[in-house]
Amino acid sequence: MKLSKIITTAGVASLALLPSVALAEEAAAVPVTPEVAYIFNTLLFLIGGFLVMWMAAGFAMLEAGLVRTKNVSMQCLKNIALYSIAGIMYLVIGYNLMYGGAEGGFIGSIGLYGFDPVGGDALDVGYSTASDWFFQMVFVATTASIVSGTVAERIKLWPFLIFVVVLTGVLYPITGKWTWGAGWLSSMGFSDFAGSTIVHSVGGWAALAGALILGARKGKYGANGSVTPMPGSSIPLATLGTFILWLGWFGFNGASQLAMGSIGDVSDVSRIFANTNLAAAGGVVAAIVLTQLRYGKIDVTMALNGALAGLVSITAEPLAPSGLASVLIGAVGGVLVVVTVPLLDKLKIDDVVGAIPVHLVAGIWGTLIVPATNDGASLGTQIIGIVAMGAFTFIASAIVWFILKVTMGIRASEEDEERGLDLAEVGVEAYPEFGSGSQRL
Amino acid sequence: MKLSKIITTAGVASLALLPSVALAEEAAAVPVTPEVAYIFNTLLFLIGGFLVMWMAAGFAMLEAGLVRTKNVSMQCLKNIALYSIAGIMYLVIGYNLMYGGAEGGFIGSIGLYGFDPVGGDALDVGYSTASDWFFQMVFVATTASIVSGTVAERIKLWPFLIFVVVLTGVLYPITGKWTWGAGWLSSMGFSDFAGSTIVHSVGGWAALAGALILGARKGKYGANGSVTPMPGSSIPLATLGTFILWLGWFGFNGASQLAMGSIGDVSDVSRIFANTNLAAAGGVVAAIVLTQLRYGKIDVTMALNGALAGLVSITAEPLAPSGLASVLIGAVGGVLVVVTVPLLDKLKIDDVVGAIPVHLVAGIWGTLIVPATNDGASLGTQIIGIVAMGAFTFIASAIVWFILKVTMGIRASEEDEERGLDLAEVGVEAYPEFGSGSQRL
Amino acid sequence: MKLSKIITTAGVASLALLPSVALAEEAAAVPVTPEVAYIFNTLLFLIGGFLVMWMAAGFAMLEAGLVRTKNVSMQCLKNIALYSIAGIMYLVIGYNLMYGGAEGGFIGSIGLYGFDPVGGDALDVGYSTASDWFFQMVFVATTASIVSGTVAERIKLWPFLIFVVVLTGVLYPITGKWTWGAGWLSSMGFSDFAGSTIVHSVGGWAALAGALILGARKGKYGANGSVTPMPGSSIPLATLGTFILWLGWFGFNGASQLAMGSIGDVSDVSRIFANTNLAAAGGVVAAIVLTQLRYGKIDVTMALNGALAGLVSITAEPLAPSGLASVLIGAVGGVLVVVTVPLLDKLKIDDVVGAIPVHLVAGIWGTLIVPATNDGASLGTQIIGIVAMGAFTFIASAIVWFILKVTMGIRASEEDEERGLDLAEVGVEAYPEFGSGSQRL
Repeated sequence: MKLSKIITTAGVASLALLPSVALAEEAAAVPVTPEVAYIFNTLLFLIGGFLVMWMAAGFAMLEAGLVRTKNVSMQCLKNIALYSIAGIMYLVIGYNLMYGGAEGGFIGSIGLYGFDPVGGDALDVGYSTASDWFFQMVFVATTASIVSGTVAERIKLWPFLIFVVVLTGVLYPITGKWTWGAGWLSSMGFSDFAGSTIVHSVGGWAALAGALILGARKGKYGANGSVTPMPGSSIPLATLGTFILWLGWFGFNGASQLAMGSIGDVSDVSRIFANTNLAAAGGVVAAIVLTQLRYGKIDVTMALNGALAGLVSITAEPLAPSGLASVLIGAVGGVLVVVTVPLLDKLKIDDVVGAIPVHLVAGIWGTLIVPATNDGASLGTQIIGIVAMGAFTFIASAIVWFILKVTMGIRASEEDEERGLDLAEVGVEAYPEFGSGSQRL
Repeated sequence: MKLSKIITTAGVASLALLPSVALAEEAAAVPVTPEVAYIFNTLLFLIGGFLVMWMAAGFAMLEAGLVRTKNVSMQCLKNIALYSIAGIMYLVIGYNLMYGGAEGGFIGSIGLYGFDPVGGDALDVGYSTASDWFFQMVFVATTASIVSGTVAERIKLWPFLIFVVVLTGVLYPITGKWTWGAGWLSSMGFSDFAGSTIVHSVGGWAALAGALILGARKGKYGANGSVTPMPGSSIPLATLGTFILWLGWFGFNGASQLAMGSIGDVSDVSRIFANTNLAAAGGVVAAIVLTQLRYGKIDVTMALNGALAGLVSITAEPLAPSGLASVLIGAVGGVLVVVTVPLLDKLKIDDVVGAIPVHLVAGIWGTLIVPATNDGASLGTQIIGIVAMGAFTFIASAIVWFILKVTMGIRASEEDEERGLDLAEVGVEAYPEFGSGSQRL
Repeated sequence: MKLSKIITTAGVASLALLPSVALAEEAAAVPVTPEVAYIFNTLLFLIGGFLVMWMAAGFAMLEAGLVRTKNVSMQCLKNIALYSIAGIMYLVIGYNLMYGGAEGGFIGSIGLYGFDPVGGDALDVGYSTASDWFFQMVFVATTASIVSGTVAERIKLWPFLIFVVVLTGVLYPITGKWTWGAGWLSSMGFSDFAGSTIVHSVGGWAALAGALILGARKGKYGANGSVTPMPGSSIPLATLGTFILWLGWFGFNGASQLAMGSIGDVSDVSRIFANTNLAAAGGVVAAIVLTQLRYGKIDVTMALNGALAGLVSITAEPLAPSGLASVLIGAVGGVLVVVTVPLLDKLKIDDVVGAIPVHLVAGIWGTLIVPATNDGASLGTQIIGIVAMGAFTFIASAIVWFILKVTMGIRASEEDEERGLDLAEVGVEAYPEFGSGSQRL
């Protein structure tokens, strides 16, 4: 695949202004016209957007694979519903709450978002505003997906969906405003390229608040400190979900470059692709080696979560690190997962799919390590950002969860939890001809 | 499909042999050269094409999840076979039958389609003809996929595949000629951007004809009007299939813009992405709320079909509506599914996966609502198009099904239906170690 | 790969300080600037790269579906681990071993690969080097995936992973150097566009060596020549895997054009998409028809492997053939699978997923047929290439497998094989609530 040959693929340009000498200089200075750059930038959002949209399927499969058969339909329903709600909320209020308002501020503006008119857009923005909305929208959906897995197998459907409404319409856009919305944290220099904190640890904090208020699944933790394993129903579905997320992450991180209308930008997108992949690989290998050493066997779910932790870890800065540094950053993420999962069990925090180790813990790690490779970031500001966003999201989420608890209740009845949420709330078993279903027939 | 637009995308050209002042003006007026536009347009077809190709997997998973275990292998086989046949038939006869022939006509020309030669294409077409063929080919496969789900669990393999040969090689290309092939309906002003009618309701009519001639599954409808539920074997697979289709639909609708070599075109593609997503979200939310109100529970399969109905609904006009209008258009599609599914059962029309509500009913709805947002469309012409294409497809399909019935027979024997088509025709059980399989071991 | 073509695509150049008339002529002749071409070329690698990365999920699902339930977790683990290892090895040593070193040589150079710096790249290369690395890396992972399926259900995890380290870091890059790395076979004119031999048959040879040294699964072959079928656990997962691979192949073959910064290149990519699809379709139809004629039933796994064989067959030359020729080339691949699978059983070579017929046999076929449509290739050189790469890979792989066998052992104990590798090595059952798992509960 001799790429050196491509070199000549392009020769030279020259579109023109007069006289001919000036013309040549002009041409050399504008090798990509604003229109062409606009198309490339927009295309990056569209490709990145559909890849991140695909992550919604990844979360659905991961979670469907990691819950027991009696709750699989519920998990499928929650995931398609939350993705739908996130999109509508981000149109109705979220986008402007995040990107409107004053620079350096704490909150955006209120109002429905309107796309650019048919047939064109203002060239000076540099991309289609609808493509930008689409790309940002799939990010907020990711945040909601993170919560879904942690609180699985005992939460009722409607309170969960109402929480999603608030999270995607209000909470995420507020902390999003602080950072990507050019708010106060952004002014301070907080650096989180594609959202280790802004998306992942925020989702993790919301999930943690939910897990604490909701309590553990019945029978998970014994009085004597024992932990009952509740193995997931389908490892191949969990594996599929992980691969989907891995694929989607190229859009998540790559398109967060926000532009590819120059050779510098598209080269950066390429670096990001490569580094993102290497961090995930590092997470897998670290998790495999560590579980082998520690337990004498490799828990495949640790390998899967290791991949995801590697991905989360590199998300705050996927551009600056070298390839090897990316492997290491991801590997630390993988180690953190293997260490944190049993720790949560000791604290009797029941996180069904391991979303807190993956998204919260690795998200913090990824945000903290940014200054190591990016001179523009400072550890102090990173800590301020992590703490501020964490405190806000945890407290606000806890308030919402608590209100839902005391009003409509958030937890399924013991009986419903026992027989499974699929029969109790969804009315359709995931596998009616086998699994827990067939035992009842 | 706005073919006229492509012409303007590239038309300009001629960086003329002029004095330098004129040259400069020319350059300012041609910010995207015809060559660059050509590359962008072709790339849109390629990306859109592989996304729609992926929908073949979506239908396979959706249907594999919604049939019972004893027919899952058959459904997998049917889907990979129909996709293959569609591609070959569209090469051998379909494409030219659809796009050849006189403008304003009723039928195209007969003949094998030939791609552009290696190493180039005529610049004046504005895109690579092979990319166009690829993109149109995956659409015809979609039509065949729709039929596959409805007639599941009792049709024999070979007559089904022969029907696919006729549908993809002849029937779809004929009605396709009327519209996208610049035929008589197109001349009248019939407006169906990406195929609510041209693809989806056509597939739905062919499926309906099949369901009527084939009859319901054994035991589905009791003499006393009772309906026996026959729940699908795997909700996660059905969910996966729905997410795949949702993803693929960005290509289906987005690339139907047919060009992205200008900022106007790529901005329109962006609007289409956003609107397509919002319509699906509207379909999900509407289906969830309605089933909750009506049945006190949420049937997850209704949520899935709600998403698909939302997608079908917006397909006829994904560009003109605002974001909120798209939510509403999709929501009506979701409502139609919830209403139509039990209606079909009352009529004893056995549609295993709900393809008729999703593709036929929502397809008609989407086509009818076009004039509400697109001034260029008229309700009268939309109705003429729906009726003409529906009547032709239903009658022609019925004739083909009938001929197949009286010659080779289309329905599996009672015994084969009872033990499942996997053992009877495919020879491989889908889940030999569990499910219906294990009960025999 | 026709690199000569790429050169002529653009050459033009010479940023001329000339009278404006000449300048205008120049402009007309250079419609795509080097910067724009660079972006397009890089984008092709990125899109192609993520599509081929997705094939890792395809292999995981295909193999998870074709092994028995007791080994499914193991297969998932092996696939995510091998993909991770391949990426790291290709960074640390593989890439430079393949692309470094002298032209016409036998081996590349040793050393870590470094991406282009942040914010840009040398324009004269014509694409981002990180995007090139990413694209080449996913190819080496494919080779390792091929091995994984053949040796399933009886190999121990760690020796397998060590083999992957050697294969992806050393063996594949050596033969890769001979060809795509501008080595001696390339100098001779060996023609293998996207890797029927370089990727697929190389993977097949490594798998064959493993299968021979490892031996068949316990109970597979009786003393009297009987063959015990061991049907796969999930046909829908195998089908999903096949569709994923089919989708990924558009990137595999299409992006192997290595450039899309001219109308000639992007038109060629389009031809490749169409031909790739048609060859797969031909493989499916041929496999279906042949199994129907031969066995009176259609084995769905043969249809799936027929698709893959069609894809492998067209990979050596997806550009030159006409559409119909592509169908035929793929169809022969499909026939070869149907014929070879029982042949392997006769030879008591236990290839769990049929990877040897699909990747080795069809890979050889695809490489041999290149001269029929590509005048630049000669049958003699094709044979030399096939034999040289096959001999090297088979012998070197056998040595590695043998060393692993006599040192740490490669085969699971009889007891572990009996109860399944999931319990023995992975510690997590794939389906704990049904399948073989539930029988023990």
